[in-house]
Amino acid sequence: MGLLVVGSIALDTVATPFDSIDNALGGSAVYVSIAASYFSGPVYMVGVVGDDFSREHIALLESHHIDIEGLQIVPGAKTFRWSGRYHYDLNARDTLLTELNVFETFNPVIPEKYQKSKFLLLGNIDPVLQLRVLEQLDEPKFVVCDTMDFWIKGKKAELFEVLKRVHVLIINDSEARLLANEPNLIKAAKIIRAMGPQYLIIKKGEHGALLFSEDTIFSAPAYPLENIYDPTGAGDTFAGGFVGYVHKTQDVSIENLKRAVVFGSAMASFCVEKFSVNGIVDLSYLRVHDRFREFLKLSKFDDED
Amino acid sequence: MGLLVVGSIALDTVATPFDSIDNALGGSAVYVSIAASYFSGPVYMVGVVGDDFSREHIALLESHHIDIEGLQIVPGAKTFRWSGRYHYDLNARDTLLTELNVFETFNPVIPEKYQKSKFLLLGNIDPVLQLRVLEQLDEPKFVVCDTMDFWIKGKKAELFEVLKRVHVLIINDSEARLLANEPNLIKAAKIIRAMGPQYLIIKKGEHGALLFSEDTIFSAPAYPLENIYDPTGAGDTFAGGFVGYVHKTQDVSIENLKRAVVFGSAMASFCVEKFSVNGIVDLSYLRVHDRFREFLKLSKFDDED
Repeated sequence: MGLLVVGSIALDTVATPFDSIDNALGGSAVYVSIAASYFSGPVYMVGVVGDDFSREHIALLESHHIDIEGLQIVPGAKTFRWSGRYHYDLNARDTLLTELNVFETFNPVIPEKYQKSKFLLLGNIDPVLQLRVLEQLDEPKFVVCDTMDFWIKGKKAELFEVLKRVHVLIINDSEARLLANEPNLIKAAKIIRAMGPQYLIIKKGEHGALLFSEDTIFSAPAYPLENIYDPTGAGDTFAGGFVGYVHKTQDVSIENLKRAVVFGSAMASFCVEKFSVNGIVDLSYLRVHDRFREFLKLSKFDDED
Repeated sequence: MGLLVVGSIALDTVATPFDSIDNALGGSAVYVSIAASYFSGPVYMVGVVGDDFSREHIALLESHHIDIEGLQIVPGAKTFRWSGRYHYDLNARDTLLTELNVFETFNPVIPEKYQKSKFLLLGNIDPVLQLRVLEQLDEPKFVVCDTMDFWIKGKKAELFEVLKRVHVLIINDSEARLLANEPNLIKAAKIIRAMGPQYLIIKKGEHGALLFSEDTIFSAPAYPLENIYDPTGAGDTFAGGFVGYVHKTQDVSIENLKRAVVFGSAMASFCVEKFSVNGIVDLSYLRVHDRFREFLKLSKFDDED
C-alpha cells in the first residue's frame, strides 16, 4: 500500500542573495513526494495543476515512482504560482506574489485505489481541504500534518478539527508559539499535544528539530551547512523524509520516530544546498543514509566509563 | 594543582518578568568558580572587591572550597556593580547601570602558589587584563577564555593577542558572527579557530551549544526547561562546568571535551532555574551527573539494525 501525499503543486519564482529562478517546480506535495520517494514506493500524490504544467515536471515525478492518478490537470487554467525573495541571512523572506489559480477551487478527490492508504501526509494547505481528505479515507493509521501561521490565524476552528484526527503535527518554532499562545516551546508542546496529536515535531531551522511525545523529548541537531542556497521547500522535504522513513519501516515506535526525524533532517539538508527541487532529485537511499550517519557522529557523546 | 579562575566579582541588581533582586552575588569569576567547585578542588579565584563585599559572600565561596588568596579587597572602595532588566522572553536584556568601582583600576596579581596552574579559565574581562594573567603563569597547558561583544568591538587587537594563547574560546552565536564578520556559524568557526584557539565553543542559549575542532563538530542539545527565572551568569556557569570537568578528568581528548560541553550545559540549566547564584549553590556532583544523563537520553538515537 502506498504513502498518500496531499498538498500544493506550484511554480515558484525565487530570489536569494546568490541567484534566482523563475517558474521552478515547487509546492508542498512535490517536495514531500520526491523526498519520500527515496524510502519506499509507491507515493500516491494528490494535487491540482493547470495545463501550463510542463511534461518535464510530470516526467520528473514519474521518474521518482510517484503515482499521479490523483493529479488533477485543469484544462485552460494556470498552475498555482508563488514568488518570494529571501533576505541576506536567509532566515526571513518576503512573499512577492501568490496567484492561487487552479488552487482556488481545488477539491481533493482521493482515487479509490488510494482510499485504503494507512500512511497519510497532509501537506500545508487549507484545513478545510485537509478535513475533506480525511473524510475520504477508510482508516488511516498514521496521519502526519503540516500547517502554517496563515491557517493558525485564519482557520483556527477548522485546524482544531484536523488536529483531533492526526497522529503527528509538524510545525516550526514560531508557529508552535502562535498556535499555543505560549512563548516557551516546552510548555507550548504540551498545550499543542493536548489538542490532539500524539506526537509533535517542532522544526527550528539551523538549530535542528524537537520531537515530543507523552513522556519523551528528543532533540535532533541540524546539519552544519556552510552554504545554504535556497531554503524553499526545506520544511516539506523534512516532512517527506520523516513520513517516508516511517512508511518504509512500518514502525511507529518512539525510537523509530527519532530516526525518522533525523532522516527528515538529512533530506532537508540536501534540499537547501541547491535551488528549487534540484537538491533532492538526484539522491539515493545510500547517500541519504550516509548523511544520517553524519548526524549520529555530530550528536553522539558517551557517558563516563 | 588547582584550577585557576580570573574574572569579575560583582553585586548584581537584576529584574526579570518574574522577580527582582538587589546587590546579589555575581560576576564571571564567581559563577565560574562555584560551578567548577562541584568537579574538583581546589579552585583558585583571582578578582577584586571593595570592603562592602559581605562576609556572607566570602563564606559562601569558602564553603565551596574556593581558595581566595587571590581575592583583592580594597579598603574604602566599592565592589563592581551591574544592573540589568530582562525582556518578556528573557532572550534580551537592557543594562541599566554599570559601576566599575574597584574594577576600574584592577590589576590581577597571581599569587605564587597559583602560578604553576596547568588549567586556567579567563573570565570575561578586558583582554589587556587577560594578557597580564597569562604573562604571570609558568606554562598553562589548557587555557579556556570567555569574552563578549564589548571587547570584540573595543579591544580587537588585544583580544587577538589573547586568542593566540588560548586553547578553547567560549562565546555565544552573535559574538561569533561579530568576531568572524561572517553570518554563517560554520564558516565563522573556521575563521575564529584560525585566530588561535584549537577548540571553539559556540553557545546558542535555548538551542544548545556547538564544539568545533580541526576535524570535528559536536552539537549538544539544550535542556528543555519550562521555567527560566534568571539567565544571569548562565554563560559563566557553562564555562565553569566545562573547565571544571576537564580539570577533574585531566583529559583533553575530543571525546572528553564533548562530555565537558554537556556538563557545562547541565550546570547552566541549573543556574537559570533560580535567581542569581541560588540555582548552583546547593548542588552535588551526583545531581549534576543525573542531569548529564538526561542530556544523553535527550539526544540519543540509534542507527538502523
